[in-house]
Parts: sequence; C-alpha cells; structure tokens
Amino acid sequence: MTDRSPPTKRFLRALAGETLSPPPFWLMRQAGRYLPEYRETRATAGSFLDLCYNPALASEVTLQPLRRYGFDAAILFSDILVVPDALGQTVAFREGEGPVLTPIRSAGDLSRLDASGLHQHLAPVYATMATLSKAIPATTALIGFAGAPWTVATYMVEGSGSKDFAQTKKLMWSEPETFARLMQMLTTATGDYLIRQIDNGAEAIQIFDTWAGALPEDQFERWVIGPTRSLVERIRSERPGVPVVGFPRQAGILYERFVTETGVDGVSLDSGVPLAWAAEKLQPRCTVQGNLDPILLVAGGEALDAGIDRILKVLGKGRFIFNLGHGIVPQTPPEHVARLAERLKGWKG
Amino acid sequence: MTDRSPPTKRFLRALAGETLSPPPFWLMRQAGRYLPEYRETRATAGSFLDLCYNPALASEVTLQPLRRYGFDAAILFSDILVVPDALGQTVAFREGEGPVLTPIRSAGDLSRLDASGLHQHLAPVYATMATLSKAIPATTALIGFAGAPWTVATYMVEGSGSKDFAQTKKLMWSEPETFARLMQMLTTATGDYLIRQIDNGAEAIQIFDTWAGALPEDQFERWVIGPTRSLVERIRSERPGVPVVGFPRQAGILYERFVTETGVDGVSLDSGVPLAWAAEKLQPRCTVQGNLDPILLVAGGEALDAGIDRILKVLGKGRFIFNLGHGIVPQTPPEHVARLAERLKGWKG
Repeated sequence: MTDRSPPTKRFLRALAGETLSPPPFWLMRQAGRYLPEYRETRATAGSFLDLCYNPALASEVTLQPLRRYGFDAAILFSDILVVPDALGQTVAFREGEGPVLTPIRSAGDLSRLDASGLHQHLAPVYATMATLSKAIPATTALIGFAGAPWTVATYMVEGSGSKDFAQTKKLMWSEPETFARLMQMLTTATGDYLIRQIDNGAEAIQIFDTWAGALPEDQFERWVIGPTRSLVERIRSERPGVPVVGFPRQAGILYERFVTETGVDGVSLDSGVPLAWAAEKLQPRCTVQGNLDPILLVAGGEALDAGIDRILKVLGKGRFIFNLGHGIVPQTPPEHVARLAERLKGWKG
Repeated sequence: MTDRSPPTKRFLRALAGETLSPPPFWLMRQAGRYLPEYRETRATAGSFLDLCYNPALASEVTLQPLRRYGFDAAILFSDILVVPDALGQTVAFREGEGPVLTPIRSAGDLSRLDASGLHQHLAPVYATMATLSKAIPATTALIGFAGAPWTVATYMVEGSGSKDFAQTKKLMWSEPETFARLMQMLTTATGDYLIRQIDNGAEAIQIFDTWAGALPEDQFERWVIGPTRSLVERIRSERPGVPVVGFPRQAGILYERFVTETGVDGVSLDSGVPLAWAAEKLQPRCTVQGNLDPILLVAGGEALDAGIDRILKVLGKGRFIFNLGHGIVPQTPPEHVARLAERLKGWKG
C-alpha cells in the first residue's frame, strides 16, 4: 500500500493540518442509546456483543446518526472489549451493570489467552467496516478504533469497571514482567486489529485511552505513551497516510508529552482541558478534537450555545475537529444534538 | 484573635514556607479501615455518622495511626457530608454502597434546607476537635477540614456518588440561579463550620474538592476557584495565621490557576500531577503536598520504595509535605505504611 492522495473529506483535511471554518464535527458515541432508532435496532439483536458482531445491524446503527445530523465522520460501531473477547477471555455485558470479564491476574491466567484466532473472531467487525465503506456518504470519513492497551488491560485485570484500578496497578507494580507480557500481547493484537480495519475501509484511527489519567507520570510514559507510540509508528509504516487520533482522557498536564512523544496526528481532549492552554501547547503540534461537556447536550438551551461558542472561539482558529469531551449520555434529547449540529454548521469563525 | 507566633510543629513550618528535610508527612484517610484497631472501634459505634458524631470514639480513631506511625499531622475524623446533614438533608451511609441522600434538585428542595441549626448539629464534631487538641502529641499538628462546596453539592444533588455528575451539572447549567443559591449556602455554612473548628483547636484547614476535575474551565473558575478563594479570604481575615490547603483533585492544568487565584497556603496533588511541573509551576507559589499513588501502598516492596524516592527527589527540594494522591484504600497492609514511614524518616535530601 502506498501513500494516498490528499484527502477531500473535511474530517481528513482537518487531520492533515488544514484549518476549516466551520470545523468538521462528529460526536463520541453518536450511534447509541439516546436515539430511538438505535434502541429499536438494539432490541432485535441478542446481547450487546451480538450487536457488535452483526455486520448488518452494526453498520445500520453506525449510519443512523448520519441521517439525522450529517456528521463529518462516522465511527465503526463496536466495543473496545472485542479484543480481549477475541483473545479468549470471557467477556459479558450485563444490562445496567457494564462489562464483566473473568479476570487475568497472574502469569497462569495470561497463558490461557491465545492470539492465533484473533482475525477469525473479529471477521464480523471487518465485515461491518467493509459494509460501511460502501454505504457511507461520499463526504463522510470512516473512523476505525480500538481501546488503548492500558485501558483494555484495566478491564482485563479488574474483571469489570473500577474506581481505583487497584488490581491492575498491583499487577503492574508487583509482577512487572507478567504485566509487561500482557501489555505486549495487547499492543500487538491491537495493531493487527487496526491494520485489518484499515484494509477494510477505515480512513482514520482513534485510540481510546479512557483511563490514561489514572497513572503517575512514570507509568503513563511506559504504559500510555509507549504503546500508543508503537501503534502510531506501525500504522505509519505499514499503512502510510492513515491518520491516528489519540485520546488519553484526563491526562491533564501530560497531554503535552503525549502529543510530542507519540506522534499522533490528532488528539481528543476531555472537557477539563483548558482551551487557551490547548491552543498554545497542543494545536501547533497536531489537530485537536473536542471538548464539549456531554452534560451540556443534556442541559441544552442557551447554556449549550454558550458552551459551543466558547470552544469555537478559541480552538476554531487552528486545526480543529469539534467533538465532545466524552461519549454522549443516554438521556441526551436528540433535538439538542440537532441544535448543536445547526449551530456548528452556521458558525463563521 | 490576633496573629499567632511562628509555628514550631514541622507540618505547620512547611506550610509557612520552610523547606524541611526529611519533609513532614501524613496520609489522607490515615485513620481508617486498613487498621484493625479502627475496625474494632468502628464496630462499637452504630452507623458511620454515629461514629463521626461521637467525640470519644472519633478522637480515638483520629489518634490511632499516630501511635503506630508518628505522623506529623492528624486530621479530624469526620466526613464531608456532615454539612448537608447539619443543613437538614437526609444523609445515610449504607455498608458497601456509599452515601445516600434525598436529592436536592429544585428551588423547592433547596428551600427545605435550614442553616440555623448548623452549630448545634455539629457540636459533637467541635467537641471531638477540642478533645484532640488536648490529646494530640506536642509535635503533631491538628488539621480541620471540610468538603469544598462544589464536591459537597454533587452529593447533595445526585443523592449519591456519580460517574458523570449529570444531575448536578444539569442544575448548574439549566437552573443557574438555584444552583448559585445552593453554592452560596454551602460556602457560608462551610466557612462557619471551619471557623468553629479553628476555635476548637484546628491549627490548619484542608478543603477537599474531590470532583474538581469534572468541570470545564469556566465552571471550574466559578465553582471551584471562587468558593475556595472566599473561604481562604474569610479564614485569613477572621482567624489570621491558620493556613489553608486546597485539594482540587484531578484539576490537571488548572492546578496552576487554582493556586494563583485562591491564595491557598498549600495545595494537595493527586498522583497524576507530574512532579517536575509541580516543582516549576506550583512550589514557588505555595507548599505542595502529595502525591504517592495509594495503590503503591498496597503493592509495597521495591516499587513502593522507588515511588517514594521519585517524589522526594523532585519535590523534597522545596516546601513540601509528603502525602498520598488520594486516600488510603482499605486493603492496604499496615506494614507497608510502616515501611513508608521508616523510609521517609530516614530520608536525607
């Protein structure tokens, strides 16, 4: 595969370094429970993972929000835990409880994982991507994604969501060799998975490191920056021209090192990142994406308008993609998303 | 009350601006479930709030960790939710579930709160402080504390812990006048409460803003910096000489504005704050406190030693108090705390 021609889709142009007015926009978890048509499709699938592994339904829910709001990008409908699932760990989603996994907490547990069936297991996800690649509007970019190794590892070790990641950090600090093997396995599998997403039509990649903010700087360097940099380098080398967006959520001051040292083309910002700081420290180095508080989309009204304008005024002057600081929440009224889309499309920077 | 004489206790000297080697140390939640003697005392009280309101038992658990580890400071044993409890909101702690409150979500709910009985309700807490003031070792400083208005408001509005603070933010953005009234009531009550703690023997104050990191910059400025600054100014004016430590947890880049604009004497850092950045941006302006990852105290061993040394090498050169980045977790082995205490006391910077 050789270098691609210069992008024409607005989302990809922004990632290539152009300042666009109005900026391109999409929303994390734009395909989801806040939409009645999603809930309708969801009800026809079995489990949540069944939906992720059903190319017809997964591509349908990916496309649903585009029909309403005309986003500049669509992200594959899937979940970050399909990777541990494909490695042979038992993963289940219980309604209202979040994910439950049989935890990996020792070298013995780790030895039961097996990467040899990765692509076979994930074939339906690749089929979804291929379907989307044909079905997506000509001006809409198609984003592939994966969880970052650190964030996926927290679920694999805790066996569920967690407040303090005690089991994961204990493994990291008390059995560093076992933890390093888990992270190496995840980094390789994640790279394999992302490359195959690209080969099936993904035009850009986002890597979600939702729990990056939980690590002190030395461990952040090793387990957030390190694996992300190696994923960026691998994609750049094996599939040149496909941009990568990192999202080291709540990294705070460490967003700067993250951008400098991973080489990402774009960085997604949580809602806590001050705009002027991002404009000064991050935007000269890569495209920034973000960072409206998702609860402003629940509140709506003038507060929503003011929140949108506050971001556009500061970040809209440089390379920028409008997004939320975290995923849309289920109680978001769809008409508030319409209000956001309308305001963005009418923005004159 | 007039200015006090220069402090002799190591913790207070560090807050007054001295660089001490080894630095003074204490640990957030040092009186707690990881200690068998705490669990024994806890079992003799009724509910968790009963323990907070029992001067004999609350002072006993405050003193317990001092006997083991010789910390340079002790913090009043209490809870940040005694303030809403004293304002008349129904507050209960259910074992393993965390706090449950009858939520305040409207002007009508708010009108049922009443600050007139605050001091009467909190009299047992003041009695605990008075008891501690006499019982504490001569070299140990006695810290009073409260939750910051923003963090206390999240519990009052959500009615429990929360992941995204959706109800609180919705009130903040959709009913700004009602939310401002709640915050004003909390700021006044918190100030009254802290002044009275000082009058009963507290030699320093820490204000815990555990959820400060959940706010975008404009709301952080208004609801974290604003109320903290007014508390700092009130204490400085009404009880001069009593230092105030702020803890805007996970504020990230906004730690800098917090320190500059609130005028705190000290700032407590979560474990995600990079040390070199804190030494450059924060330590010249106030005393810094922190920020060992609490899970390193669970892991123990050489990882713990390395984690301690990493912090001491960077922050130990300036005005500094060693602490954790968040509270001790219940599964912490007490012997790991002993190892930490020994290493700190032997440190030659």
